[in-house]
Amino acid sequence: MVVDPAAPSTALLTDHYELTMLASALADGTGDRTCVFEVFARRLPDGRRYGVVAGTERLLSAITDFRFTDAELAQLEATAVVGADTLAWLADYSFSGEIDGYPEGELYFPGSPVLTVRGTFAEAVVLETLALSILNHDSAIASAAARMTGAANSRPIIEMGGRRTHEHAAVAAARAAYLAGFAATSNLEAGRRYGIPTRGTVAHAFMLLHDDEEEAFRAQVRKLGADTTLLVDTYDITAGIEAAVRVAGAELGAIRIDSGDVGPLARRAREQLDALGAKDTRIIVSGDLDEYAIAALRAEPVDAYGVGTSVVTGSGAPTAGMVYKLVEVDGRPVAKRSAYKESRGGRKAALRRHKETGTALEEVIHRAGEPPERGPHDRELQIPLMRSGQIVDDLPTLDDGRQRLRRALVSLPWEGLKLSSGEPAIPTVFR
Amino acid sequence: MVVDPAAPSTALLTDHYELTMLASALADGTGDRTCVFEVFARRLPDGRRYGVVAGTERLLSAITDFRFTDAELAQLEATAVVGADTLAWLADYSFSGEIDGYPEGELYFPGSPVLTVRGTFAEAVVLETLALSILNHDSAIASAAARMTGAANSRPIIEMGGRRTHEHAAVAAARAAYLAGFAATSNLEAGRRYGIPTRGTVAHAFMLLHDDEEEAFRAQVRKLGADTTLLVDTYDITAGIEAAVRVAGAELGAIRIDSGDVGPLARRAREQLDALGAKDTRIIVSGDLDEYAIAALRAEPVDAYGVGTSVVTGSGAPTAGMVYKLVEVDGRPVAKRSAYKESRGGRKAALRRHKETGTALEEVIHRAGEPPERGPHDRELQIPLMRSGQIVDDLPTLDDGRQRLRRALVSLPWEGLKLSSGEPAIPTVFR
Repeated sequence: MVVDPAAPSTALLTDHYELTMLASALADGTGDRTCVFEVFARRLPDGRRYGVVAGTERLLSAITDFRFTDAELAQLEATAVVGADTLAWLADYSFSGEIDGYPEGELYFPGSPVLTVRGTFAEAVVLETLALSILNHDSAIASAAARMTGAANSRPIIEMGGRRTHEHAAVAAARAAYLAGFAATSNLEAGRRYGIPTRGTVAHAFMLLHDDEEEAFRAQVRKLGADTTLLVDTYDITAGIEAAVRVAGAELGAIRIDSGDVGPLARRAREQLDALGAKDTRIIVSGDLDEYAIAALRAEPVDAYGVGTSVVTGSGAPTAGMVYKLVEVDGRPVAKRSAYKESRGGRKAALRRHKETGTALEEVIHRAGEPPERGPHDRELQIPLMRSGQIVDDLPTLDDGRQRLRRALVSLPWEGLKLSSGEPAIPTVFR
Repeated sequence: MVVDPAAPSTALLTDHYELTMLASALADGTGDRTCVFEVFARRLPDGRRYGVVAGTERLLSAITDFRFTDAELAQLEATAVVGADTLAWLADYSFSGEIDGYPEGELYFPGSPVLTVRGTFAEAVVLETLALSILNHDSAIASAAARMTGAANSRPIIEMGGRRTHEHAAVAAARAAYLAGFAATSNLEAGRRYGIPTRGTVAHAFMLLHDDEEEAFRAQVRKLGADTTLLVDTYDITAGIEAAVRVAGAELGAIRIDSGDVGPLARRAREQLDALGAKDTRIIVSGDLDEYAIAALRAEPVDAYGVGTSVVTGSGAPTAGMVYKLVEVDGRPVAKRSAYKESRGGRKAALRRHKETGTALEEVIHRAGEPPERGPHDRELQIPLMRSGQIVDDLPTLDDGRQRLRRALVSLPWEGLKLSSGEPAIPTVFR
């Protein structure tokens, strides 16, 4: 990964309390204590069987850009968030610790130590909000998207939900959906930033702009070729398909249906296309699809799906609910002891047990450095991500993550891939 | 508003299909047709009584930054999204049309013409995704936040959900929540960018960093003064409050309780604080609060709320579901005629009818330039936002929006302020 020195600072994407904690800890000397913070989810969203880790590469890059330039310091001074001594410390800030974690595309379960940050309290405490924002958002999208990819059963899905979420969240959502097996995105910035294939042809506006449907089709085919996708549901779908094939011929690439009861409509469209000789013309459906609607279309002659709102909003679970907890101070385990939100102290690591057949059995979470007796089909889950504040050289790529997730999903017990609500696919065991 | 020439371009926060439509329309000459696009929501999220318009100022600023520099053009060329003729057109792009819309903080209902964009098809079609991303996100947050402000019944709420949403969505969410009456945010970047007051003291990590609770309290009070907020639920709340008052004295600013059944806990805490002589010490509660939990705490001795996840995720409605539809071409109304998603053609405007008492009666949507007979208590809802591609001089500020929303909510029939699911607070009437 190339670090861009001109990239805007991420340092104020932070909660006020991180800097007031820092100020107090610097003042009484505790800021120098060596600490371990752990990112994990206490539970999966209601009824979900697994979560998908996403956002790690974005986070590491954002940590590299976490620095306090004159602009950030001036703001903190003007609003008196912290005093001169803390400002001086921040001016030199650069994270110098180490980070380990689950690679992108790995599955996680309740309690999985998705990320472990080790450094002084002062340097690690200020990363809480940034780490959680990125991991909670991206993992929520990837987790929803993986259910859709599974439901689509190898038919391609195009992510087209950018318009339903914050304009920059849209870019990250396209990346997370691609990680989870989507084929492409409509989002041009995701194409630029992450090299994800982008797709798109026309909206209904283009149809309405023209005096009639056939004229719009002709304009589109003239510019984009017969292999394009014609949008046939602006007026009457049957007449639309007839006009589409009349204009583009049997070489027409695809039609898109964006409204109505798309199952029966796709069936009728397939029959009509075949009768018109357009046997290779594909049918793309879109319009408020989620994983359940995709699954319901499995038996229908649909060639590809366009998915928007549901994927970018996490399909009912818009955040992954991960937390960033202090678990160790100078080698001593620490944990909140309130009756309500129990946490387990101490730095942890994890391995996943599998049967001989490769089917996952359980998520074993153990004290770091004290692994349980290793079985022949166990797999360690954390990898090094940052050393001395530098991103490791062999950080997995986005494509590595896609492949990792594909393999991980295949390893789940069959029950764990059901869309219906239920328990996590495998139990978490603390050793 | 000051336009920053160094601001990054927003031009690729766009769906691929907008540029392919553009290419086809430029090629056949229809790109020059004068068009009107309208942003509206077909319906409110399930059971909601009203929506709150938010994001308009952010959108206008993003439209000003919508330009294709060498970097954007090189990307589009490399990925062959459009050809040389379209690239040349984009290189000169600058929106030159006019925009009208509901000001921020105004209520909207199904069909309300929240934004009206007028220009050539070519210049207006490319703004679809940007407009919808910003308005859908910000309005979803503001709509949820307004319910919380109402439930809190003038007690202050601090937004602290940045960690549960995309790192930049967090900044916009803080702004939208503030628009809807929140008192402050934890997000430092929202403080810098929008001048919103920021707040925060410590997390449990700070408590656990220290060898015991009292030491942590002492460190915090030494640095932040007795007027700070001490977090008393790390171990035992009763012992925590005792220690807090021992350390800070009766001048202790506030305690925060972040877990457990906060109603009874707040009551016990109030009694204990009063008994210790800390009668002015406030009680702040946080931890998975939403509008229902806030309402349930109305009778409890709570002085302020911290709200996170629920507000930044729109409390069950993470997107406002607005659409950007072509409604007029060269003065001629156009509309999709499919059986499934009916739209109304023609440029529209709106006014809100009120009773003599000031209570809102109905949202009247009419053809622009053809207002119905005006009643004495009608209020026109659209204002000019952009003229010849320039933001109008007297654009309402964020504080104007806060006041507007407060007035608008007071005008709703009492039914319309209920948190329970139901019909929109006032009916939409098309004239």
